[in-house]
Amino acid sequence: MSVTFEAWVGACAARTEAALEHALPSAAAAPQRLHAAMRHAVLGGGKRVRPLLVYAAGEAFGGEPAALDRAAVAVELIHAYSLVHDDMPEMDNDALRRGRPTVHVAFDQATALLAGDALQTLAFEVLSAPESAQACTMVAELAGASGARGMAGGQAIDLANVGRKMDREALEHMHRLKTGALLRAAVRLGARAGRIPAPQESAALDDYARAVGLAFQVVDDILDTEADTATLGKTAGKDAAADKPTYVSMLGLDASKKLAEQLRQQAHAALAAIDGATARLQDIADFIVLRKS
Amino acid sequence: MSVTFEAWVGACAARTEAALEHALPSAAAAPQRLHAAMRHAVLGGGKRVRPLLVYAAGEAFGGEPAALDRAAVAVELIHAYSLVHDDMPEMDNDALRRGRPTVHVAFDQATALLAGDALQTLAFEVLSAPESAQACTMVAELAGASGARGMAGGQAIDLANVGRKMDREALEHMHRLKTGALLRAAVRLGARAGRIPAPQESAALDDYARAVGLAFQVVDDILDTEADTATLGKTAGKDAAADKPTYVSMLGLDASKKLAEQLRQQAHAALAAIDGATARLQDIADFIVLRKS
Repeated sequence: MSVTFEAWVGACAARTEAALEHALPSAAAAPQRLHAAMRHAVLGGGKRVRPLLVYAAGEAFGGEPAALDRAAVAVELIHAYSLVHDDMPEMDNDALRRGRPTVHVAFDQATALLAGDALQTLAFEVLSAPESAQACTMVAELAGASGARGMAGGQAIDLANVGRKMDREALEHMHRLKTGALLRAAVRLGARAGRIPAPQESAALDDYARAVGLAFQVVDDILDTEADTATLGKTAGKDAAADKPTYVSMLGLDASKKLAEQLRQQAHAALAAIDGATARLQDIADFIVLRKS
Repeated sequence: MSVTFEAWVGACAARTEAALEHALPSAAAAPQRLHAAMRHAVLGGGKRVRPLLVYAAGEAFGGEPAALDRAAVAVELIHAYSLVHDDMPEMDNDALRRGRPTVHVAFDQATALLAGDALQTLAFEVLSAPESAQACTMVAELAGASGARGMAGGQAIDLANVGRKMDREALEHMHRLKTGALLRAAVRLGARAGRIPAPQESAALDDYARAVGLAFQVVDDILDTEADTATLGKTAGKDAAADKPTYVSMLGLDASKKLAEQLRQQAHAALAAIDGATARLQDIADFIVLRKS
């Protein structure tokens, strides 16, 4: 445990990158353009927050390394597919992601559509590979978090509310589906790669994931207001320009910062109910709230 | 076994429709527009060829009814999602499907993108629901058939070859991925819902699926040339107009018809190696080759 959080994050990112590289189809194999687009979308960037949550929860519940790698890859592939489709002209129409051209700009729209589709499929292919009951539970968890009752449903709510007034409850519900569901799945998959959590531990993981997920969004809105495009690696001020409701537009900047700090403390408090090494989960809550990009 | 093939098809279609209706989110629940688009894409139409293959293979291998329903729903959801995305302007840009407006026309492009995404997720959610090792094997099978090494890869090859000359081998490889992989998965999932096929039976199922899958495509090309839009329920002559390579453009109409008949006989021959009731699988091969739409 003498490894610093920064070193641990670096090791997890390298491990995730290697596992993603292993899971993705080779750029040399046909159909090359599809494979190249999939690799462009996934490799060489991103904060890898979801894999970090997988590995941190794995540390708390004694997760088996190979199962953790599969879970980390699967959640990151789902995240990557959602970004590819979200950036497309019919959705957010964004040209820049992680400091590089988005997939439909670097390739073309048809390829971006197919690459996103194939990345989603690959997530379930990777996760189901052991053909075990435990792996099936993980597939069910990830699918529940990604579909109409989770991430895709959140995006549909987001779409339906552009230019409309949303109250705080509606905004929170939208984010709980759009980004919260997959973050929660990352935590739960990491845990399930080890021993089965006791009921109160499962509830504590959910409390932790809810606080961290909401904090992630609140901080995103703060950074979208305060940071510049170069620091973010994506277009800054985009949500405000698109007249999308944000925590900053709803609560103001100061109250948003206070909320983020409260959520960080709630995340810490939730971890007390877990019988295992939760220091990394605690560090991640700090990292999410205190990050600058 | 006194039920005619037509009555059996009708019963399977009704059973599939009910299972799909049960699996899909309610149109009354939020986000309504996403749910309505998903339902529009899936319910009330289609030949349900993939579910027929599931149930027919299930009959040969003693498939458990609930497992067969899950498999039938999952393959049909994957098929439906691929049609939604394939019809979009960046792909085939088609306005008509099953005699009704396509999803991006009836709703909008962003909703079509999300609905397709959520349908794919739902397929894996339905299939993984039992959280068993058997269900996980079925998820792995379906994911392998749907992604970059299967259906999505076939679509990418198709995309890369519009306006280009393809030789017969390349065309067959494209179709084997684009439509063949999912038809094969339907057969294999139906079988795996029952007893584990012996190696020679597994090979026979693959031979059957390859012949039926290829026949399906050859007959599609024949119908695209011969039938009119009203009979097909989709835009006729579309492939020729888009300068896409087809069996008819490559072999001519007569040779294409001969090939379809040969494939029908190959499908029948393959079934001899299976120790079970294969009459329905045989009927389906006939149905696919002799259909008029």
